[in-house]
Amino acid sequence: MRSSSGAVDFPPIYCPLESAVHPRVRAIEEQAERWVRDSGMCATDQEADWVVASHSTDFFARFAPVCDDERLLATSLWVYFGFGFDDARCDNGPLSSRPAEFNALAGRVQRAAEAPSAPAGGERFIKPLQHIIGLFRSFGTAGQVRRFLDAHRAWLSGVCWQIGNQASGRMPELDEYIAMRLLASGGEPTFAMLELATGMEIPDTELHAPAVRALTEMAILVAALDNDRHSLRKEMSRGHTDQNIYSVLTHHRMLPLAEAVEQGTGIRDRVLTRFMALHDRLRPRAGAELASYLQGLRHGIRGNAEWGLHVPRYVSLGRVPDPMEETPLEWAQGPSDAIAAPVEGAPSIAWWWDADLA
Amino acid sequence: MRSSSGAVDFPPIYCPLESAVHPRVRAIEEQAERWVRDSGMCATDQEADWVVASHSTDFFARFAPVCDDERLLATSLWVYFGFGFDDARCDNGPLSSRPAEFNALAGRVQRAAEAPSAPAGGERFIKPLQHIIGLFRSFGTAGQVRRFLDAHRAWLSGVCWQIGNQASGRMPELDEYIAMRLLASGGEPTFAMLELATGMEIPDTELHAPAVRALTEMAILVAALDNDRHSLRKEMSRGHTDQNIYSVLTHHRMLPLAEAVEQGTGIRDRVLTRFMALHDRLRPRAGAELASYLQGLRHGIRGNAEWGLHVPRYVSLGRVPDPMEETPLEWAQGPSDAIAAPVEGAPSIAWWWDADLA
Repeated sequence: MRSSSGAVDFPPIYCPLESAVHPRVRAIEEQAERWVRDSGMCATDQEADWVVASHSTDFFARFAPVCDDERLLATSLWVYFGFGFDDARCDNGPLSSRPAEFNALAGRVQRAAEAPSAPAGGERFIKPLQHIIGLFRSFGTAGQVRRFLDAHRAWLSGVCWQIGNQASGRMPELDEYIAMRLLASGGEPTFAMLELATGMEIPDTELHAPAVRALTEMAILVAALDNDRHSLRKEMSRGHTDQNIYSVLTHHRMLPLAEAVEQGTGIRDRVLTRFMALHDRLRPRAGAELASYLQGLRHGIRGNAEWGLHVPRYVSLGRVPDPMEETPLEWAQGPSDAIAAPVEGAPSIAWWWDADLA
Repeated sequence: MRSSSGAVDFPPIYCPLESAVHPRVRAIEEQAERWVRDSGMCATDQEADWVVASHSTDFFARFAPVCDDERLLATSLWVYFGFGFDDARCDNGPLSSRPAEFNALAGRVQRAAEAPSAPAGGERFIKPLQHIIGLFRSFGTAGQVRRFLDAHRAWLSGVCWQIGNQASGRMPELDEYIAMRLLASGGEPTFAMLELATGMEIPDTELHAPAVRALTEMAILVAALDNDRHSLRKEMSRGHTDQNIYSVLTHHRMLPLAEAVEQGTGIRDRVLTRFMALHDRLRPRAGAELASYLQGLRHGIRGNAEWGLHVPRYVSLGRVPDPMEETPLEWAQGPSDAIAAPVEGAPSIAWWWDADLA
């Protein structure tokens, strides 16, 4: 299935990874939706409608298809929070081009996540976030919660970067864009929740080994570039010219959009190809916890792509979100670029191709 | 010894903690100074003079009085880097009131610390930083390096916050100031280097336990408030009105400086009193690695105070730094405030006084 994004056609997505979804996703999603509407996080019913239309439980139920219901509920609540905060405070709203104010907000939000005693100070997203982190603390280990919180700070630091660029009207070059997008996409906290969902705690030496770190970053980038694709149609329909892989390539390589799509798809496919090769070298030696995590990365890449292709957040163009469709998806037969070498113009991620990654 | 800071007298510092310094500090400091001058980090000889005048090896030799020479050298190099970067990019210089540009710089610097393949892109601090992190990787475990890198991001996020406030001319209230200063002071990466220096890796469950986290944050805050004291004289002599504990209190509580000094000292002493009480409850149950870390927090608080009282970075008022004096120091006999309850107006740290901290 080629899909059209207004002026541009996208090829089908290449993603030969396992598809799975948590068996009780619908029931848990209903609980989550009620929580979102009651949490005080959204200023209006319409804002809540769009947050609910992110179908965040459907999203994370694909990352963690095997886990306790209460854990899937809590982790998917954070995804709803993330989308809501993103919509109201990052991508739009008065702070989206005021880095000084946003930096202070990000600092306060992060402190509130870390310190249960920190005050909301009039910010409606803080109490719901503290509730979610309280759930994480109730079933997660101290180490798992700390990893999530560090990842949460990484996310906010990326949003600060993005908002700074937006405020100064600066379109980053490819290397900077990738480094920023790895953070701002929210992939760090999302994948850090794999441990919280499954309960499997990966030993430090394994999780922080360069090869596993590389796989995590690759999974984040593939998912983030897929989301650039998914959201392009909506952004174009609204006349946005946000920082995304296509605007970066059209701007700095003077490409027409169709060619930027081709090159962006190539970058994404090359990274996924490297992910699969490195994964296959590591997996046979992995212990149970690391194996579960690596499988989670695979499920996450695949699940994010599936979710993005039909979620109303990206698909609906109107003022009110449409219901989610369950049309069958079609996938590319092979990668558009399978070169086993670093992406040109992206030295910050060149180390992913180091031959000595274990 | 009361010390005078231009218009204001400070009482002697209360700090009944052990004093110690690495026996080979002078020889290692000489190596470090040569490295700083050869690293390319400083734009001019005068800038290098001020970085060298931070006597960062003397500083960190008090945090880690027992460790291998190569580890003390590498960790103190990061302290020199931190002071140099702070001087040229954070507290002064063209970016110190341009949050959009600083956010992007902070993002690039952090990425360069994490990814050896990331380019310097014309930023003279990046290659020296990558060299230092390379040393950390050569003797540290993957977990220790990861903890340091997360702490490094926390530091930069605090600087972004501080620069944002500066740019918008906003003086934070006490609670926000403390939350920001805990990060912007650089205490997170400094204390995270204890593990790298001693080689003692603390198990996740112990390091991330709320009580140990509270002790770490308390140590950071005490040291940061001591540095507010140390740097006030210099800031006043230069006509700065930076965000510090005294400007926060004079501004929001309408206090004359002398009273702000009294209240600021009270807050600092109350936190140190709580640190000592909680430490004494935890220490007998701590394993060898955690005990080493807790002792490092004590050494760090004490060492930072000793260093700050005579380091030319704070003491010299001229254009060129004076040599370091070794005058004997005098200390307060007791705390000015030993109330065993949270600091008023600072809910973000109120949890440090929770009765159920293990």
